[in-house]
Amino acid sequence: VTRVAAYQLSPRIGDLQYNLQLSTAAIRTSVDAGARVVVLPELVSSGYVFASRAEAASVAIDSDHPLFECWAAEASRADAIVIGGFCELGGDGLLYNSAAICDSAGVVAVYRKSHLWDREKLVFEPGAEPPTVIDTPLGRIGVLICYDLEFPELTRLLALAGADLIAVPANWPLVPRPAGEHPPEVVAAMAAARANRMFVACCDRLGDERGVRWTGGTALISELGFVVAATAEPAMVIADLDLARAREKRLGPHNHALEDRRPDLYRNTLHARELAPRG
Amino acid sequence: VTRVAAYQLSPRIGDLQYNLQLSTAAIRTSVDAGARVVVLPELVSSGYVFASRAEAASVAIDSDHPLFECWAAEASRADAIVIGGFCELGGDGLLYNSAAICDSAGVVAVYRKSHLWDREKLVFEPGAEPPTVIDTPLGRIGVLICYDLEFPELTRLLALAGADLIAVPANWPLVPRPAGEHPPEVVAAMAAARANRMFVACCDRLGDERGVRWTGGTALISELGFVVAATAEPAMVIADLDLARAREKRLGPHNHALEDRRPDLYRNTLHARELAPRG
Repeated sequence: VTRVAAYQLSPRIGDLQYNLQLSTAAIRTSVDAGARVVVLPELVSSGYVFASRAEAASVAIDSDHPLFECWAAEASRADAIVIGGFCELGGDGLLYNSAAICDSAGVVAVYRKSHLWDREKLVFEPGAEPPTVIDTPLGRIGVLICYDLEFPELTRLLALAGADLIAVPANWPLVPRPAGEHPPEVVAAMAAARANRMFVACCDRLGDERGVRWTGGTALISELGFVVAATAEPAMVIADLDLARAREKRLGPHNHALEDRRPDLYRNTLHARELAPRG
Repeated sequence: VTRVAAYQLSPRIGDLQYNLQLSTAAIRTSVDAGARVVVLPELVSSGYVFASRAEAASVAIDSDHPLFECWAAEASRADAIVIGGFCELGGDGLLYNSAAICDSAGVVAVYRKSHLWDREKLVFEPGAEPPTVIDTPLGRIGVLICYDLEFPELTRLLALAGADLIAVPANWPLVPRPAGEHPPEVVAAMAAARANRMFVACCDRLGDERGVRWTGGTALISELGFVVAATAEPAMVIADLDLARAREKRLGPHNHALEDRRPDLYRNTLHARELAPRG
């Protein structure tokens, strides 16, 4: 089994140094608790509600930034993997809402959010590549960022690419929901976990920022689609997950979560509005 | 708004006449309560746990069977639409796990389940066509059957084809779940509703049959992905749903549930195991 942590944090908008210390301390606490995989929120390096593209640019960093050396140093204490969001300045001079996957040696891969939410479209470029699956000694880890998770095409893509665990740095704006229900984004994660028989670790934010209130939807979800651990507090969520169970896609003697798919029937899902309703 | 009912029933295995009366009475009760759309369980004409293909064949019917005249007669009292499952004898002599969509005039369309669960594979042929969307005066209704619902490709396909409501006749075998959680199949329906901003009406079974215990997961789900009405009893679930809300796919000024999709990134979802995990 692999101990997985997600640390629900509140970064400060535009305060790179504070956020470096906050996120590094969260990794330290998680590793001290035995975590081998640590997930942090979206844009944890920078905060989220930018007043302008210029403000975002002022705290944009690349994968050589010392922040990642700090993350890697904490990871190295337990050969851990860290997945966290950052405001990326691309080599092309454009800004991306990205997530870094770090191990003891530093940044292994960067995923750029491909489905941008709301005013992100005024600040960031959407990623041009599908999400990443990293083959680590702990298992295969896929990464999505926040709104990406609401596209079941992407969770399926990661399952087909062999992901055992999807790490989801998020900043989910709070929406109303009936009493007793999970946040709807967590419901999406539960459904994706079950449909694909893989684990999902969502790391969200708490509190508010410039009038946006966050959901606090951090949750670890089993390959059966159930919430194993969650919190509504500014706290670490941690659980031992048997990631190997994600390799078993058989559902009894006659079924298989992936092989039961019927790609012959799905082709039109690529083309919006191609099918006409039949009368 | 449209009043939608789903009637959680327990048909008797192999007893076509009893099931005809049971299902017709359920439609009558639903129409009397003002329902304009009535959803019944999977294989409500025949029961589910067949001992053999021969037993299933003994109660297989086609769309000219008097059962559907009875359904249509009840529907005609309120210009209602009925969606219910039946054991179909195809013109090719093969058996299908099908759903009929009936209006006042009779069967409008038949959908054959395309993803077969467990021992169904020993009895039925899988449907060769994608699911159906019917343009009715009440709205566009798509149909899936039970295990079909667990493939987000299909719910997306129906949304892209313009479905406002997906009717899901089901027979969900009970699986363990944590206290306070919806059945995982209902979670899948909730996620599909929200991802596609469309309504979902699931009609399940209760009780048990030849050792299989059913979930009783009948639920009506809003386009925001929340359960509007559900029951754990042998009962009708009924609610007024504003199906027109499913036509609004915009999510604020910058987003759209379907147009935010990135088909350029999804192509590999058609081909299992084509993507190699990256190291």
